[in-house]
Amino acid sequence: MNFEQAWLDYKGKAVSTEVGEIKFICADVQDELIRNSVKELQAAVKAMTGKEPVLQADSFESKAEQQIESISLVIKEGVKAEGYRLLEKAGQIIVEASDSRGILYGTFALIRLIQAGETLRGLHITKEPAMPLRMLNHWDNMDGSIERGYSGESFFFENNEILVNDRTVTYARLASSVGINAVVINNVNVKDSATYLITDRYFDQLKAMSEIFAGYGIKLYLSLNYAAPVELNELDSADPLSEEVRAWWKKRMEIVFGAVPNLGGFLIKADSEGRPGPFTYGRTHADGANMLAEAAEPYGGLIIWRCFVYNCKQDWRDRKTDRARSGYDNFIGLDGTFRDNVILQIKNGPMDFQVREPVHPLFGGLKKTNQMLEVQIAQEYTGQQRHICYLIPMFRQVLKYRTYVQESNDTVEDIVSGRTFGQKNCGMAAVANTGNDENWTGHDMAAANLYGFGRLAFEPDLTAEAIAKEWIRVTYGVNKKAEEILLNMLMNSWPAYEKYTSPLGIGWMVNPSVHYGPNVDGYEYDRWGTYHRADHLGIGVDRSRVGTGYALLYNEPNASAYDDRERCPEELLLFFHHIPYTWKLKTGKTVIQHIYDTHFEGVETVDEMAAGFEKLKGILPDKVFERVMKRLSHQKEHAREWRDQVNSYFYRKSGIPDEKGREIW
Amino acid sequence: MNFEQAWLDYKGKAVSTEVGEIKFICADVQDELIRNSVKELQAAVKAMTGKEPVLQADSFESKAEQQIESISLVIKEGVKAEGYRLLEKAGQIIVEASDSRGILYGTFALIRLIQAGETLRGLHITKEPAMPLRMLNHWDNMDGSIERGYSGESFFFENNEILVNDRTVTYARLASSVGINAVVINNVNVKDSATYLITDRYFDQLKAMSEIFAGYGIKLYLSLNYAAPVELNELDSADPLSEEVRAWWKKRMEIVFGAVPNLGGFLIKADSEGRPGPFTYGRTHADGANMLAEAAEPYGGLIIWRCFVYNCKQDWRDRKTDRARSGYDNFIGLDGTFRDNVILQIKNGPMDFQVREPVHPLFGGLKKTNQMLEVQIAQEYTGQQRHICYLIPMFRQVLKYRTYVQESNDTVEDIVSGRTFGQKNCGMAAVANTGNDENWTGHDMAAANLYGFGRLAFEPDLTAEAIAKEWIRVTYGVNKKAEEILLNMLMNSWPAYEKYTSPLGIGWMVNPSVHYGPNVDGYEYDRWGTYHRADHLGIGVDRSRVGTGYALLYNEPNASAYDDRERCPEELLLFFHHIPYTWKLKTGKTVIQHIYDTHFEGVETVDEMAAGFEKLKGILPDKVFERVMKRLSHQKEHAREWRDQVNSYFYRKSGIPDEKGREIW
Repeated sequence: MNFEQAWLDYKGKAVSTEVGEIKFICADVQDELIRNSVKELQAAVKAMTGKEPVLQADSFESKAEQQIESISLVIKEGVKAEGYRLLEKAGQIIVEASDSRGILYGTFALIRLIQAGETLRGLHITKEPAMPLRMLNHWDNMDGSIERGYSGESFFFENNEILVNDRTVTYARLASSVGINAVVINNVNVKDSATYLITDRYFDQLKAMSEIFAGYGIKLYLSLNYAAPVELNELDSADPLSEEVRAWWKKRMEIVFGAVPNLGGFLIKADSEGRPGPFTYGRTHADGANMLAEAAEPYGGLIIWRCFVYNCKQDWRDRKTDRARSGYDNFIGLDGTFRDNVILQIKNGPMDFQVREPVHPLFGGLKKTNQMLEVQIAQEYTGQQRHICYLIPMFRQVLKYRTYVQESNDTVEDIVSGRTFGQKNCGMAAVANTGNDENWTGHDMAAANLYGFGRLAFEPDLTAEAIAKEWIRVTYGVNKKAEEILLNMLMNSWPAYEKYTSPLGIGWMVNPSVHYGPNVDGYEYDRWGTYHRADHLGIGVDRSRVGTGYALLYNEPNASAYDDRERCPEELLLFFHHIPYTWKLKTGKTVIQHIYDTHFEGVETVDEMAAGFEKLKGILPDKVFERVMKRLSHQKEHAREWRDQVNSYFYRKSGIPDEKGREIW
Repeated sequence: MNFEQAWLDYKGKAVSTEVGEIKFICADVQDELIRNSVKELQAAVKAMTGKEPVLQADSFESKAEQQIESISLVIKEGVKAEGYRLLEKAGQIIVEASDSRGILYGTFALIRLIQAGETLRGLHITKEPAMPLRMLNHWDNMDGSIERGYSGESFFFENNEILVNDRTVTYARLASSVGINAVVINNVNVKDSATYLITDRYFDQLKAMSEIFAGYGIKLYLSLNYAAPVELNELDSADPLSEEVRAWWKKRMEIVFGAVPNLGGFLIKADSEGRPGPFTYGRTHADGANMLAEAAEPYGGLIIWRCFVYNCKQDWRDRKTDRARSGYDNFIGLDGTFRDNVILQIKNGPMDFQVREPVHPLFGGLKKTNQMLEVQIAQEYTGQQRHICYLIPMFRQVLKYRTYVQESNDTVEDIVSGRTFGQKNCGMAAVANTGNDENWTGHDMAAANLYGFGRLAFEPDLTAEAIAKEWIRVTYGVNKKAEEILLNMLMNSWPAYEKYTSPLGIGWMVNPSVHYGPNVDGYEYDRWGTYHRADHLGIGVDRSRVGTGYALLYNEPNASAYDDRERCPEELLLFFHHIPYTWKLKTGKTVIQHIYDTHFEGVETVDEMAAGFEKLKGILPDKVFERVMKRLSHQKEHAREWRDQVNSYFYRKSGIPDEKGREIW
């Protein structure tokens, strides 16, 4: 399967004029990460200038200072782990870091500057990653399929074997270049062959993969089957308090960590959507996680335990049970009971990656537990990489959200960066959007989410717009027209998608199982806890104190604001309240008119995007242009389908006509 | 795979007391059908009495007259083909017929009488089948799956091979015992291996199967891939007017009919739901059918051409296109242009086997074309053999429906029996409900539909109740309690299913693709032409003269009645008209109250059925009891799901409360 280089395709890019002068790269290359940094620099400079800089390997530091027109990679105290400093001194560019990972990140940062056409003269930049863990979660199955994958099949697995090849290296380079330092390669729903990843059936290939990853500063993680001792037919139980089970895991961890160097630990989905877990034995999530953590601890292994636990067999008639509460209710009582090498991985919202959700109340709830934020760049509910939906603005909103868990340093970003509670094991994970498609992400524009996620986790102070601009430049070169049009498309895409899909935070309204395309009642009479409760007078779920009480799970002043329909942020109004169609929003529009208007507006924005993009014919590579244009055509049509179904549904239900008399069926 | 004998399980049945006296069966057994008749009689009498009657083979007629306590099978002029006469004369029972098929049917009729405990003294019955063709259509795929199969896998095919074994024989006996004389063994959607059924890859097994069928008076039919010459890579075209294509089919028919004796002909689904057909070449259905018919004619082969043709890519916004019209519109102009060995096979209604539909307007429309009625005993839309739904009352209503195509002899039954237009190639087909489940039909009660279809096609004057009673007796023996309870269940089942599912003829409201379970909007915004158009004021599709005009496709007085909402039969009201929820029905109830009431009533009936059935513990075989009880438990729960979803949907949409204040969500 052919594959492209995405933003690491250095050829033919517009570059800083100074780069032509670079003749030497000075570095000690004992370390593989530094060797890889040198390789990247040589390749980049050669591709951009035609001349490959010469490597000055030994005692580079003293020589380098006399040398102009060179890039020096220098290990030196001063910045914290994984951080880097970029300096220019008398024609010499210096990448400083206190460890080789910092050198690598600094190198990629320097290449970005060159690609983006920034001047290197007077360079003086220091960057330290905000979050200790910057992770990708791949939901790849060992048969090669990808759960919620929209870019082809897996490049990690095929026919129950592990693939290690050129693509593995390019993947590691892409991930590392944006600061990713941890990768879970297999689906959190661990079944069949994947249960055997912790057995010698797969150790050779895992070792080979993990060594490639190590060269780019990436730790390999595996998703684990909680019931492995049973499903591997070795024990009758997976009870976390059983001595036999605990001993089994200790032995197993010794074997796995011994066989697979550079293994970071494990991700576990337990007691969730049918997956096994400690509940089977009447034990808690803490019992389960701690058992594994104790076994992994001697090897520095982390146990990342997902909080996506809820009743997936709810009766739709039941208005007391609230899926939104369940993550909180299941875990809040366990705060402080987890071992230090356990991290709870919490989705950005309490439901499941909808286009709009409130921030998960466990952020600001948990105080004595390591936490990781989970977002999804696989566009499961946001257009499945057939629609454009640049998600970095949403993620950034989540990170900047104040939890009021304390007076300051209380944002989600503060918590998962370790600033709030002084924790070291924390960070951010994204469910990956890659596959074996030539361009990695199906939709070329979806690569901005992959790129942006890494950049944001490293530097959350970057604006979504700055990240988008950077991605456009490093991917398509410096071209004003392309930049303007693509930036506009990316920045408008999430708002547009929100407008033409489900309104005001209510979510869902998709076809069940596939999660694509409009179906207003698709989940309304189902068992998944995902309802809109629309009747002929109004719509929304009452999660206030007189409803399910979910609003009160937040700290003040958030709780009171959410609880009060007058003060509730309007983009979440229907998430928190059942509201009449005739309710006046702050714009002066009624809810029903807002629904009609936004649905028409969303489609108009898509039409504008497509019209804008057409102007890039001949500017973007033909292949990219064709791929994106094809998807835009589909998006235009499909956005209309969304608009018409949603508007018709609410018109037929409410009987209230559109003030503007537009066609509604 | 084990299998049971269904109603041919003669063991332990209550029987006529006279049977103990039978010592001889007198028959000439040159003919295989008569040999099989003798075998059936010997087996039945032995199983019921413990004594096997002796066969008196030669010059049986004269001897038989001196012999008392005997059954004589006598070929004799007097009844028409396939008919039979049962007589008792001085202790001798005589089965008379003008052909050996009549002997076989008479024999099975006699066995039924014995099983049902009827007296044989004074027997004097003459029966002649109403319809020339009494056919089963199996939608079995060659990989072993069954399209719309709810009783396990195929017993005709497995892994792209044809199965011929003991089960084939029992199948033939079951079919023949109720008068079936034609069987299509493969799915009308002919793909992959099934395209090769007309090649020598499968001739040996087809011949073996067809010989078994022949012994029971059954002709073998195959579903044909219209594009076979192309898909078999022999020609580039399947144009019915191409000489090359016509020659290809002539040669092919010569080969197939030569290799497979007892082949009756072919069933074709063309230009329907993605299947190939003559439209590809700008030709008509008549061109396509006639080409095949001409090729099959020398061998007496019939071409059965389905009329299930419609636009399956309709835009739900389009209110002009009406799927209900499409069968009529596609075929009415071709009336009189089909060869005499072509039969058009027309579904009972214009949509697709819903719980309630008007009769297809092609019946009474076509006047110069052979016609066959297609019904579906596979319960695709009627509970999928997890719900009880005895369909014979519905089929009988269809048969007795007056089309007014002429002054008398104008019912659907008259037309497909050949009485209306004097046609010989006509009859009735059912999409079969069998599979390789032990009991053949998944739900034990569903066997009543298989049995009943055959009996009804042979004798449409039998009431649905009489057929049900007969089936109960021959299947479970003569037991007053069982008869009362099971009869009650069967007779209430279709009305109950109609009550708790979609109201007043509107249909659909099921989960797409699977066609099981409630989903009121499941097909509302889809491309299949199946809409209910419910808004907050009313529901229904306007098919009157001011709507799609469909009502006017019928002959008078039907057309005027359907066209007028005041005179339209209420069970079809929403099929023909868009009606306000507040519209008063003849009962004095509003439409919305009717919806609520019928949904509560339907569930109550199911509860009563289940309560009644529980009393049969110990009376029915344990295995049967458990199987049915398990399904009844599911039906109880699932009927509630239907009730609650439908009622909640309409309550939420209309805002009109239930007068009786029952719980609606």
